[in-house]
Amino acid sequence: MPTSDPDGSATDLLEALAAAVAGRVLTDPASTEAYRRDQCLVADAGRPLAVVRAAGVDDVVAVLRLADEHRVPVVTRGAGSGLAGAANAVDDGLVLDVSGLDALSVDPVARTATVGPGVVNLDLDTAARAHGLFYAPDPGSRAYSSIGGNLATNAGGMCCAKYGVTADHALALTVVLPGGEVVRTGRTTRKDVVGLDLTRLLVGSEGTLGVVVEATVRLLPVPARTATAVLTFRDAAAAVDAVLAIGTVTTPSAVELMDATTVRAVNAMTRMGLDETPTLLVQCDGSDAAAEIAAVAALAQRHGALEVLHSDDEEEGRALMEARRVALTALERQGTVLLDDVCVPVHRLPELLGAIETAARAHGVLVGTFGHAADGNLHPTIVFDPASPGAAEAARACFDAIVDAALALDGTVSGEHGVGVLKAPYVARQVGAAEQALMRRVRAAFDPHGIMNPGRGY
Amino acid sequence: MPTSDPDGSATDLLEALAAAVAGRVLTDPASTEAYRRDQCLVADAGRPLAVVRAAGVDDVVAVLRLADEHRVPVVTRGAGSGLAGAANAVDDGLVLDVSGLDALSVDPVARTATVGPGVVNLDLDTAARAHGLFYAPDPGSRAYSSIGGNLATNAGGMCCAKYGVTADHALALTVVLPGGEVVRTGRTTRKDVVGLDLTRLLVGSEGTLGVVVEATVRLLPVPARTATAVLTFRDAAAAVDAVLAIGTVTTPSAVELMDATTVRAVNAMTRMGLDETPTLLVQCDGSDAAAEIAAVAALAQRHGALEVLHSDDEEEGRALMEARRVALTALERQGTVLLDDVCVPVHRLPELLGAIETAARAHGVLVGTFGHAADGNLHPTIVFDPASPGAAEAARACFDAIVDAALALDGTVSGEHGVGVLKAPYVARQVGAAEQALMRRVRAAFDPHGIMNPGRGY
Ligand SMILES: Cc1cc2nc3c(=O)[nH]c(=O)nc-3n(C[C@H](O)[C@H](O)[C@H](O)COP(=O)(O)OP(=O)(O)OC[C@H]3O[C@@H](n4cnc5c(N)ncnc54)[C@H](O)[C@@H]3O)c2cc1C
Ligand SMILES: Cc1cc2nc3c(=O)[nH]c(=O)nc-3n(C[C@H](O)[C@H](O)[C@H](O)COP(=O)(O)OP(=O)(O)OC[C@H]3O[C@@H](n4cnc5c(N)ncnc54)[C@H](O)[C@@H]3O)c2cc1C
Repeated sequence: MPTSDPDGSATDLLEALAAAVAGRVLTDPASTEAYRRDQCLVADAGRPLAVVRAAGVDDVVAVLRLADEHRVPVVTRGAGSGLAGAANAVDDGLVLDVSGLDALSVDPVARTATVGPGVVNLDLDTAARAHGLFYAPDPGSRAYSSIGGNLATNAGGMCCAKYGVTADHALALTVVLPGGEVVRTGRTTRKDVVGLDLTRLLVGSEGTLGVVVEATVRLLPVPARTATAVLTFRDAAAAVDAVLAIGTVTTPSAVELMDATTVRAVNAMTRMGLDETPTLLVQCDGSDAAAEIAAVAALAQRHGALEVLHSDDEEEGRALMEARRVALTALERQGTVLLDDVCVPVHRLPELLGAIETAARAHGVLVGTFGHAADGNLHPTIVFDPASPGAAEAARACFDAIVDAALALDGTVSGEHGVGVLKAPYVARQVGAAEQALMRRVRAAFDPHGIMNPGRGY
Repeated sequence: MPTSDPDGSATDLLEALAAAVAGRVLTDPASTEAYRRDQCLVADAGRPLAVVRAAGVDDVVAVLRLADEHRVPVVTRGAGSGLAGAANAVDDGLVLDVSGLDALSVDPVARTATVGPGVVNLDLDTAARAHGLFYAPDPGSRAYSSIGGNLATNAGGMCCAKYGVTADHALALTVVLPGGEVVRTGRTTRKDVVGLDLTRLLVGSEGTLGVVVEATVRLLPVPARTATAVLTFRDAAAAVDAVLAIGTVTTPSAVELMDATTVRAVNAMTRMGLDETPTLLVQCDGSDAAAEIAAVAALAQRHGALEVLHSDDEEEGRALMEARRVALTALERQGTVLLDDVCVPVHRLPELLGAIETAARAHGVLVGTFGHAADGNLHPTIVFDPASPGAAEAARACFDAIVDAALALDGTVSGEHGVGVLKAPYVARQVGAAEQALMRRVRAAFDPHGIMNPGRGY
């Protein structure tokens, strides 16, 4: 029950919801608490009027019809693993949990899968692999994040370097619009130029245009081989030089960077005993993976790599990549973290890394930086002790300085985590006022009453 | 001067235009005639009020401001090489020729080029190659089609099989909106999830949302090697089987199909003496191209190829691909052509090819089919003699039957040529009424008075 409901409209809505989606509406704060926020610890989260746990498309239609009639905000929720507060509840709004829509079918001949939005990324990949196929977009959260959330944030991952982001694998969507209308966008063909590309418009729109209730995605044949290299450098600029050089001879399936602070944190947690210096982890895949990784290693050597280690054993490769996989967890062991997600043109990475160091020094905070070097997408992770006076403010000031630096380098304030609540204050500065107004006109074409994730995004 | 101008509003507009873009306004029919249509011979074309040959962004701004004020239609024109009538003049509207906006600069470090919309595709590629880079999208019309037109149609080409379509290479756009406002979309970073993807929305929108006046596009390092194979098959179904098998082991940079009718037409024109049977032309590129093409050849042999020829000599490769390059011209020698552009999921190509044959037989017309097999995108080309009674009607009936077949196979009525005037009647059937209405609401968010290419597209 809402705390205040002077005109009884919230009560009306709850009654209508109870009739339409009986048994799947939570209103008691003890139950709704778990649906209030995602994994972004610093973004505000409201207190919802109710949480609806949709069991099927009809439930989503009913919720968007009723919410639109009552002009009540709706926040769609997948797995809640977001890092920008985009799935955080809005005061007196509804949280629409679609994790229960988890039908999954693979068409090995068409090399596609058709999934409900609640299907977990890794479950989709596992189902594909049973047919010799795989689902390329591999966010670090793939073991629990949902395809609906991945689509709504246009999630990236390590293998974007070669395979692109979620948008590059989304073929067709079924979407419920505010008001309850159901539309289908896209085509399962490899090319299609009929009408506007609504699929691309929806991908990355962070639940502001409608609710994805089904998606058909592209699957790819599992590459024959994978090979991995670990390369260490005196400084991060040398590592970036190597990244640029590697990009001229091959397209690795992953090019991940860890700075010395990150490697130190990993060592502290794992006793891996890595050299505490900027490190690149590179993977190549395909029939020629071993030769490609050898070429990468040779090139790195010519670009001043200190240590070069490579292997074309799949298991060993996984072990070598492990340091990167635990990087965030390792930094979290050192204190509370404020995770950033800036992205710049690749050749400007040295400048970005310099600016991050300057910001860390200026604000007296520890910053561990890791990320997707071949995409120019870094996650400077500010580590602070919230109990120490002024530390949270210093962390936030450092965060702002990093965002400023990214924009000054023609970069973006978010490469993959999204805008949500966390980055909303920076949007106008990045895209411009006329452009933001245009985006909002497009948004209104989907959502005339502004009920979808209001205040979030753009 | 317009033939009829009862309220003098056309005269007012022409006076305002003459003041704003002095010396670049053509009104006399002898001069405007050349701007009335594109390369689609069967689509209607109107008689424009005037043609404005823009010399810079200011001219485009002035035209879109004045046309919006006067509610007069604007058709943007690049090179006029379109195949759907999308650049055809509208009666009493303006044709805005942007081919004069042809500034071009390459940033070899960022691996991007920034171009005016009038830059010819091949000129961009040539400029990139001077830096060891290339511009991937390679429509058959690349020697004359413009980047603005390529963007507006999301042009494809042979190398889409590996490198994707124009949209995959467009990073940032500067666009003039109806009314004259200038917006910038996108980012030159490899990833960006801030706000809606307006760049993708504009690409493929066929001049219905605004005028692209500048684009920053991605360039790629020129692959070290190219290798080519020619494979012939007993029937087209066997060729498609081979295409599917090849796709599981490698991603060729081109997989082109020609049916027997097309090969016959090529032989008739060139005396190349090719086997008159369904033929695949496959190219692989990269450091391992020779090994990859050998694997392709071996696989084709196992899939029943009759003849297998392959070469890792660059020049020889070009010669082998020549047959495909002249396919359309060769078919045009046989009569008037009605070129189609359907696309289906690749594994449904045998069904599409069967339906094309059935349609040709049913309507008593000759159809030569060639196209981008790895994308499922074919160009069934109906050849007829317009002087023969009933032939044009039979050609059109065959065209409709092919479109119907593509839709029945979950395909699209256009893989790369666009909707324009030619395919507008099929849009609602393909995308659905609710979806078309949604596209139109988005269109109105850009163009509230409906002046941009009215009646075309969706
Ligand atoms: C340890 C860790 C590692 C991570 N690594 C990565 C990474 O490598 N790359 C990356 O991109 N992200 C990463 N993330 C962030 C996060 O996992 C992604 O943003 C993910 O895509 C969110 O999916 P979700 O199902 O948890 O969505 P949620 O957090 O529930 O929601 C995210 C957004 O999607 C919307 N949404 C959810 N479902 C739908 C739907 N069906 N229809 C419409 N809108 C919907 C929500 O309204 C919200 O705006 C990581 C997160 C963690 C905690
Ligand atoms: C022999 C031949 C082969 C071809 N091969 C291919 C092929 O392989 N793949 C393929 O995809 N196409 C192909 N085409 C079709 C055609 O070349 C493409 O559609 C091309 O992209 C059109 O470019 P253009 O500059 O000629 O545009 P135009 O024909 O002038 O215009 C096409 C559309 O773009 C719009 N437009 C043009 N410039 C702008 C701008 N700056 N801003 C906004 N809108 C604009 C126009 O309004 C119109 O809607 C071929 C054509 C021919 C004649």
